[in-house]
Amino acid sequence: MIKHFLSLSSFSKADLLSLIHRSHFFSQNQNRPDQIHHLLKHSIIANVFYEPSTRTRCSFEIAAKRLGADVVNFVPEHSSVKKGETVYDTLKTLESLGADAIVFRHSDDHIIDLIKPALKISLINAGAGKYEHPTQGLLDLLTLFQEFDKLEGLKVAVCGDVKHSRVAGSLIVAAKIFGMQIYQCGPESLLPEIPGKHVENADFDKILPEVDAVMMLRIQLERHENLELDSKSYHHQFGMNHRRQELMKKNAIILHPGPFNRGVEIADELVEHPQSRIFKQMSNGVATRMAVLEWAMSGRI
Amino acid sequence: MIKHFLSLSSFSKADLLSLIHRSHFFSQNQNRPDQIHHLLKHSIIANVFYEPSTRTRCSFEIAAKRLGADVVNFVPEHSSVKKGETVYDTLKTLESLGADAIVFRHSDDHIIDLIKPALKISLINAGAGKYEHPTQGLLDLLTLFQEFDKLEGLKVAVCGDVKHSRVAGSLIVAAKIFGMQIYQCGPESLLPEIPGKHVENADFDKILPEVDAVMMLRIQLERHENLELDSKSYHHQFGMNHRRQELMKKNAIILHPGPFNRGVEIADELVEHPQSRIFKQMSNGVATRMAVLEWAMSGRI
Amino acid sequence: MIKHFLSLSSFSKADLLSLIHRSHFFSQNQNRPDQIHHLLKHSIIANVFYEPSTRTRCSFEIAAKRLGADVVNFVPEHSSVKKGETVYDTLKTLESLGADAIVFRHSDDHIIDLIKPALKISLINAGAGKYEHPTQGLLDLLTLFQEFDKLEGLKVAVCGDVKHSRVAGSLIVAAKIFGMQIYQCGPESLLPEIPGKHVENADFDKILPEVDAVMMLRIQLERHENLELDSKSYHHQFGMNHRRQELMKKNAIILHPGPFNRGVEIADELVEHPQSRIFKQMSNGVATRMAVLEWAMSGRI
Repeated sequence: MIKHFLSLSSFSKADLLSLIHRSHFFSQNQNRPDQIHHLLKHSIIANVFYEPSTRTRCSFEIAAKRLGADVVNFVPEHSSVKKGETVYDTLKTLESLGADAIVFRHSDDHIIDLIKPALKISLINAGAGKYEHPTQGLLDLLTLFQEFDKLEGLKVAVCGDVKHSRVAGSLIVAAKIFGMQIYQCGPESLLPEIPGKHVENADFDKILPEVDAVMMLRIQLERHENLELDSKSYHHQFGMNHRRQELMKKNAIILHPGPFNRGVEIADELVEHPQSRIFKQMSNGVATRMAVLEWAMSGRI
Repeated sequence: MIKHFLSLSSFSKADLLSLIHRSHFFSQNQNRPDQIHHLLKHSIIANVFYEPSTRTRCSFEIAAKRLGADVVNFVPEHSSVKKGETVYDTLKTLESLGADAIVFRHSDDHIIDLIKPALKISLINAGAGKYEHPTQGLLDLLTLFQEFDKLEGLKVAVCGDVKHSRVAGSLIVAAKIFGMQIYQCGPESLLPEIPGKHVENADFDKILPEVDAVMMLRIQLERHENLELDSKSYHHQFGMNHRRQELMKKNAIILHPGPFNRGVEIADELVEHPQSRIFKQMSNGVATRMAVLEWAMSGRI
Repeated sequence: MIKHFLSLSSFSKADLLSLIHRSHFFSQNQNRPDQIHHLLKHSIIANVFYEPSTRTRCSFEIAAKRLGADVVNFVPEHSSVKKGETVYDTLKTLESLGADAIVFRHSDDHIIDLIKPALKISLINAGAGKYEHPTQGLLDLLTLFQEFDKLEGLKVAVCGDVKHSRVAGSLIVAAKIFGMQIYQCGPESLLPEIPGKHVENADFDKILPEVDAVMMLRIQLERHENLELDSKSYHHQFGMNHRRQELMKKNAIILHPGPFNRGVEIADELVEHPQSRIFKQMSNGVATRMAVLEWAMSGRI
């Protein structure tokens, strides 16, 4: 059976917990090649990124290499895309060339659904479409789990362009599965409809003292001209800064999926604040992707 | 002695058969790292592609990695090309840096002849110049050989822009060596002069019932404005479709070097038809390149 | 302790000699994987080049792979640079992802000073800023040492755009440490102020019979419009050619950091002349970078 990793919603709570535990193991043993380097030895992972993302591509590449796999980077600009090759044909080509799994990012929502049934190798969503970025969701869960030793009942504020965020999308899916409560904050026009009882809108300053974690989202003001907000007023209204950090519980943590705009959604001095877990999230991302790659290819190699 | 792989014409029939047999072995053992991963262990292959080609570059990269080699990708856009470095100096640089072989693609016909005498490492033609793409030719031979268990006497129709096709160029060279018969089909202005008795022009529909294989070529209509053909009429006149597939012998096969334009030279539903070997060709390409890399570096490492 | 490799000036003469000896060892044993492939096994080197450089990037990549390390290439065009991520955040991200060392090139002089204190992994200067390119300096020292079996007292002419050359910058630093004498030649407006007694300006033709080596620098005439020199007159006034080679001592050598402009700063026929060490410098560059990577990561892995 081909195992695709496309959305957190297709996993049971038990399966996700199992992936989180395995991710935690890898986060503790990334530098123990004797323990882990044989796990995907001689397998080939193809990175296919139609949208650029250093962070995510490098994260998957390092995860694969830590497990002993080889990585082939497909860069659309240098490729048959110029010759009009379809995404389907590109992925079937990589399958034919012997890739064991494809790590995939594309802006189109539905392209994965079209392609999935025809692939004989694992497809891993590295942020495809508009709605989910499931390995990011999983690394956020790992980071929360490492901090609080549980997920159930945690309260998380998500602030910024929640509507267009794949990161928020995956977190909201996870909230439903694990019984977390999500508070959507930010400019009203950037908040999506409320999908169910585990999500509600909130005033950012009022909810801060209540939550266990704050997920700050990157805001691209140039994409939202109707907001008529400049960086400074956005930061004042919705940015994480010293004043807001002081409103938070002492053991609450600050998250951000990166890349971040310093001085816009987060003040310079908060990025590496003791309550920030931003760089730890990145580190956890590698561990999480190791767990996902291992899961996807188990039984194949 | 430095062994370059530049043109099928420089090989004897026996040597090509030996490469085909070795390619077949690799096609059966790509996932047997215990059998093959030591063969080029610790050697370094440089991919130098002045013309973009995902398929061919990734194919060589995976072939090299399957044999345990390391791969360095030279991407002209990010390179000293901007600083005016000549191709000769770039290749000599890669030689000086310790590459054991260079996989090379360039649009210039004569550049290999200029460079070859000065190189102390193997040069492998990955589609340089206008006339040959010898690893593609070899993978086509492997695919035919796996199908028919012989090459001599096979009849192959090649349809499309035969004149400008490096793929057709290498197939025609092979036809002469192995005693195959090639039928050139397509718009008259895109058919080259007939190079000898093993090649003739033919009406596509009339020859289809006679041939063992049809090689469809990618057509870039935008390059041939004088054809005054749109995609639809090209497809009607020269494309592989259901009607034409039914004209073929039941055991004849459809080939295409890729990337293909669905609905132009080949109908959607024919790409993965039971008589199509298109994705198998891609898979065979890796096996063939493994054989070529091993051959080129034997005696060196 | 984190060991950065940023400037030759931060090393003692003894430490540099130790690096030169180790580089020489690697230059003799590049193809002895049994001796060297375990040295950085399982470590991860990130190449971060904000300015393109095939030669230097590939040189570091091959050096890392020869020592058994994995390499991740960060290519700014395909990355979060488009999203406005700062250099500091990019490097901290690569650190968080698990890179063991970062090989770094950037045009900004001061960016390394800003970043260094915050990094917990080694930073290796691959030509950052305007003033130094220390691995190039070290490979030049290796090449001189292999030739003359000493450095003290050697006389080296440097000819061309000395003012803007990171290569000359590092050589001048080394001259001070090792007691070499540097002669700056070239268009007067491209010669920097004389930094101390080990450097002086000289007439190129007059100094040629005195020196042990000539370092020709690449000249980009288009950057120096006020020179009002075309390639031909530049070559006549300051280029290395047959006439000038004959002025040199018989055992003196010609160096060039590459990439070179044939017919401008060096005549075609001099590039591979018996007295030229240009391609040997490239080969030595890999050996030198192996020594630097090993040094930087010793104690870490």
